Amino acid sequence: MLSISNRMKEVNPFYAMSLLARAGELEREGRDIVHLEIGEPDFKSPPAVIEAGMRSLSSGMIKYTAAAGLPELRSAIAAYYQSHYKLNIPAERIFITPGASGGLLLALGVLLNARDQVLMADPSYPCYRNLVRLFESEAKLIPVGPKENYQLNVDSIQSHWESRSRVVLVASPSNPTGTIISSGNLQTIAELVNSLGGCIISDEIYHGLEYESPAQSMLAYSDQALIVNSFSKYFGMTGWRVGWLVVPHQLIDAVDKLAQNVFISAPSHSQYAALASFDADNLIELDRRRLEFKRRRDYLCSELIRLGFNIGVKPGGAFYIYADCSGFEMSSSKFAELLLEQNSVALTPGKDFGINAPSTHLRFAYTTSSERIAKAVERLEDFISRL
Amino acid sequence: MLSISNRMKEVNPFYAMSLLARAGELEREGRDIVHLEIGEPDFKSPPAVIEAGMRSLSSGMIKYTAAAGLPELRSAIAAYYQSHYKLNIPAERIFITPGASGGLLLALGVLLNARDQVLMADPSYPCYRNLVRLFESEAKLIPVGPKENYQLNVDSIQSHWESRSRVVLVASPSNPTGTIISSGNLQTIAELVNSLGGCIISDEIYHGLEYESPAQSMLAYSDQALIVNSFSKYFGMTGWRVGWLVVPHQLIDAVDKLAQNVFISAPSHSQYAALASFDADNLIELDRRRLEFKRRRDYLCSELIRLGFNIGVKPGGAFYIYADCSGFEMSSSKFAELLLEQNSVALTPGKDFGINAPSTHLRFAYTTSSERIAKAVERLEDFISRL
Repeated sequence: MLSISNRMKEVNPFYAMSLLARAGELEREGRDIVHLEIGEPDFKSPPAVIEAGMRSLSSGMIKYTAAAGLPELRSAIAAYYQSHYKLNIPAERIFITPGASGGLLLALGVLLNARDQVLMADPSYPCYRNLVRLFESEAKLIPVGPKENYQLNVDSIQSHWESRSRVVLVASPSNPTGTIISSGNLQTIAELVNSLGGCIISDEIYHGLEYESPAQSMLAYSDQALIVNSFSKYFGMTGWRVGWLVVPHQLIDAVDKLAQNVFISAPSHSQYAALASFDADNLIELDRRRLEFKRRRDYLCSELIRLGFNIGVKPGGAFYIYADCSGFEMSSSKFAELLLEQNSVALTPGKDFGINAPSTHLRFAYTTSSERIAKAVERLEDFISRL
Repeated sequence: MLSISNRMKEVNPFYAMSLLARAGELEREGRDIVHLEIGEPDFKSPPAVIEAGMRSLSSGMIKYTAAAGLPELRSAIAAYYQSHYKLNIPAERIFITPGASGGLLLALGVLLNARDQVLMADPSYPCYRNLVRLFESEAKLIPVGPKENYQLNVDSIQSHWESRSRVVLVASPSNPTGTIISSGNLQTIAELVNSLGGCIISDEIYHGLEYESPAQSMLAYSDQALIVNSFSKYFGMTGWRVGWLVVPHQLIDAVDKLAQNVFISAPSHSQYAALASFDADNLIELDRRRLEFKRRRDYLCSELIRLGFNIGVKPGGAFYIYADCSGFEMSSSKFAELLLEQNSVALTPGKDFGINAPSTHLRFAYTTSSERIAKAVERLEDFISRL
């Protein structure tokens, strides 16, 4: 009687979640687990943000904001586009959302009709395909590898585009590969999708966490693209649930209506707290954290290669390494399971990210201290030596 | 090129929003507006909740929680079902959501296939039909009036049920009418929907705000119903964005998967703050507020009747009065518009709530102080005297 909707039968649970649950069990039994499976920074929320959150709470007036968000925060983000990217984005195109998830939901909801196709890279963040399915639309997974920098490009978009295709979803830096789309490729993708009559959704949630040179926003090349971003990752505010979505002028009214219906507004104290993100002192603190992530990346990349993993493209951003483990003659799922049970290190196997060679890939998240990462490397080395 | 999805063309903006925007303009011009259009309590968040929120922030560790929510909060809600309703609801059936909106999204997403029908009362909260449309399903609006206590019952459900019908959505106390479904009717509805092979979603967001006798939960009559609730209204935490959804055992896995995809988790500091809601002292404070709402209701109901409005059923809960203004020979939209422009009182016209006689109804929200409500009555009297 209580049958579950068809869409939910097609949505797979995240394997990382059952792994996390198993890690929790082991921890309750007294085991020390090194967590390299977690997609959130280990740092506390920045002090300036905490203080701003406290000030907001002390007023006692924690009310709904407008669905589009706090006007001051929308203006502050517009100013950040100006100072950081040298882009002039009017505040009325910026919607405050409950995290990037809320922004993705709005973007897909205002664009997609049933049966429309969304082109996206495989591997990629699993929520993309699941949210597309939510709207009775279809995710078209395009296999990408080291040769394509693990990203879509004009060739792959062109060759996979068909009459039902409507949206191209790109993510740079990418989860799980950490690769960045070059400015040149952003531009040619924007031109191609425009000429095909499609739309771009650009997930820029890992912007700010770049280790060679800063990433440019898709907004530099298209005022028709929808940009998903968040205070979660670079700004260190995961649990606060506050992000943003930039939309073209002609979608403003539709996005506003949808936001009123799906979430009313993002948490208001989180919005006030996020305002402090752009303080000069806070940006200095965030850059310090970025450099710490860079050190971890450099260390872990070289250690993984030494241990026999293959890293197709050195990740330029985010906090992930997507490593090829085919040299160990064991599926990545088996590898992750045994490593956790025997040597107490938790990783995410490739199957959470798609169907393109998942069994030979593992995602390492360097979201724990250098000391803990060194401990994980030691344990990995022991695990591998006994294979 | 950037065409908007069909679903969004069928979602109407809330008229209350444009009215609120106009009220804001008038306020910036120096006008004093009495707001009776706002669906959130005017009280500050309770001190115990603010303090708990502060404690959570001071830790700095504002991280994602599990998608299902903070275990302590799920347990605290289970204990509240025991103490308040005398119902034994296991914590694993309780999901913490970003407000009731998040709960509705999960409930509809796990139940509905494209073209399924959801039966609901007209007038009702406009997000219901819009969220149903989001999933390519169909809202079937059942006209209700004073004769049916503005609620669905076995007769109306039976006579509107057809092969595509799948869900019956009830809301008690109701927005916009404030009416409550009796325990007897909850039970017969549960039995009927069960025998029809359908599911019930019961929106209990206004529970706690009852002025004659406490409302029972649909859970007392069905362990298959999905219950939407929130800390927003009775618990005074609108801007915090935290609510909950109770689901039957067999939907737990599907709801968990969907929550991971659509919002990751509810704001974590809000979840910690909500824990303080159940403190004995806080419940006393909330009851004090409830009695204040009751006084406002009694005053405003009698004054509206004196002024010539017809109130079909005296509302037993929530903070709304749905008044019939047909005696004034003017559409409710025109009434609301002129009243705002000429006498500076903001109301919500019926058209936000459906297509069943909207032009002869106005919703009054008594979410402002007694003094301000008295001021609104004075202005209404002047407005009406000049018609």
